[in-house]
Amino acid sequence: MKKKYSIGIDIGGTNTKFGIVNSKGKILIQSRILTNESDTIHDFIDLLFEKLTPMIRKIAPISQFNGIGIGAPNGNYYTGNIEHAANLKWKGIIPFAYMVAEKFNLQTKLTNDANAAAMGEMAYGCAKGMKHFITITLGTGVGSGIVIDGRIVLGHDGFAGELGHVVIRQGGRLHPGTGIRGSLESYASATGVSETAKELLHQNPKTKSLLRVYLRKGTINSQIVYDCALKGDKIAKEVFKMTGQILGEALANFIMFSSPEAIILFGGLTKAGDLLMNPTKKAMEENLIQVFKNKTTLMFSQMKEADAAILGASALV
Amino acid sequence: MKKKYSIGIDIGGTNTKFGIVNSKGKILIQSRILTNESDTIHDFIDLLFEKLTPMIRKIAPISQFNGIGIGAPNGNYYTGNIEHAANLKWKGIIPFAYMVAEKFNLQTKLTNDANAAAMGEMAYGCAKGMKHFITITLGTGVGSGIVIDGRIVLGHDGFAGELGHVVIRQGGRLHPGTGIRGSLESYASATGVSETAKELLHQNPKTKSLLRVYLRKGTINSQIVYDCALKGDKIAKEVFKMTGQILGEALANFIMFSSPEAIILFGGLTKAGDLLMNPTKKAMEENLIQVFKNKTTLMFSQMKEADAAILGASALV
Repeated sequence: MKKKYSIGIDIGGTNTKFGIVNSKGKILIQSRILTNESDTIHDFIDLLFEKLTPMIRKIAPISQFNGIGIGAPNGNYYTGNIEHAANLKWKGIIPFAYMVAEKFNLQTKLTNDANAAAMGEMAYGCAKGMKHFITITLGTGVGSGIVIDGRIVLGHDGFAGELGHVVIRQGGRLHPGTGIRGSLESYASATGVSETAKELLHQNPKTKSLLRVYLRKGTINSQIVYDCALKGDKIAKEVFKMTGQILGEALANFIMFSSPEAIILFGGLTKAGDLLMNPTKKAMEENLIQVFKNKTTLMFSQMKEADAAILGASALV
Repeated sequence: MKKKYSIGIDIGGTNTKFGIVNSKGKILIQSRILTNESDTIHDFIDLLFEKLTPMIRKIAPISQFNGIGIGAPNGNYYTGNIEHAANLKWKGIIPFAYMVAEKFNLQTKLTNDANAAAMGEMAYGCAKGMKHFITITLGTGVGSGIVIDGRIVLGHDGFAGELGHVVIRQGGRLHPGTGIRGSLESYASATGVSETAKELLHQNPKTKSLLRVYLRKGTINSQIVYDCALKGDKIAKEVFKMTGQILGEALANFIMFSSPEAIILFGGLTKAGDLLMNPTKKAMEENLIQVFKNKTTLMFSQMKEADAAILGASALV
């Protein structure tokens, strides 16, 4: 008999979300814990177990569960390890899938969070039925999941698909986490948008802007830039134009690599809608050679981000 | 009974090379014709047939042949067409594989020339046994073949893997063929090397260089730059340093996409050996985030270029 339920767990820098998914891709029940609340990895897994056990009991006997799928930063599908994740408290190489499997006595698969989201899009989202697509998460950082011939690209070591770290402005903005200059993540992330706003304000000291009061208070963030852009603020609008320009150039390069049917954007920055979409699409098309022009659909994900990650993780098993 | 022989055809802008390959990957007999000598595509296929027929007779009865594999610029594996190839005389969309199959009465597969070379490396060259690698041809242009999970990456439309056209210097050198600025091919090709030499000579009018006499005569090419670099010419050496820097940055971006075991360089520019290899490797490693450092082997192909293409094409069938 085909088992009916899977557990999906999405580990983020702040929250860990988890849910029970049925075979039709519906999340029947979900909850969350704070990721860095637990001091040790053992405490964290104990807490997960404590929270999930009553949820499992509520849905069905454990024998009807396929297993557990996990999306985690720097998660490696081949090894089941979380390796040197910069945003997590637990350092080094953690055999996370193995530890969870032991604790729950269920088969467990793990991959990185961006790949899990791509799997969610493929199984239940706007990439349903597609064999070639790329998802780009524009959040605090920039993540990516690449699908070719219907399969997630993992590379020889399981770490493929770090498109946030490609260099798009040689000698450009320094990424404090990697020490590399001009990477996509330095520009096309929430942090990047704030930085661009600060730069433009400094470079144009005589241009009036609603953003200046936030600059003085030190509270500029991508949401504020968006709000100001909606109010017609010139500099705020220019921030999204520049961000889209750089993102679009990067997407053109990705298209010339794997020629995907679609690129699906999600994450906080996509709330900017057309302010981001229009310049991105324009720059993307301008940087493509003829054979690729007007072939790849650029779209925003229609799934809730948390759902995509839980569903994608659950689709691993 | 397993058939013993395959025919490989490599169509280039200047020469079309073809050979008969046995099941061990040995080219038993080969020849060539000029690609643009024939006025029509029909004349060209007739000429191929005329040249290949006696070669086939010499080796074995036609019943012992698997078929014909073809590598061609802008060749599309899915359709068997050559589509809008800039370097060929025959314009538009040509159903080349179909026409060859009709003429020879043998099953025929076609892919682009760079993918054929990658298949040659995978079947018989230094990528033997590898499941994840990228080949980059540094010739008149820059071509690429990408292998992921042991398969050539074709993309949704069969045109994936145009890494020569990724933009690596935003707003940089204009590519006359594509109209795009700053693409890899504008720098890391034979043409790019000549251009870089001319630029450096102009930018440093007071620096003595053996290259100046060729500049005056209008005969600078990548071979001359190489010869001068070997003689210790400062500007010529700088040309390869700059070329390697740009190439290395691009390779780092490719690694963060598909995390290959190896990148294999071939084509005319690789004759420059360490003059090119050292700065390329340095720039590549410098632009990788930690998780990818010192994992991907950068190497020169050990196959003769023509052999790789014929063998790769033959491996299609």
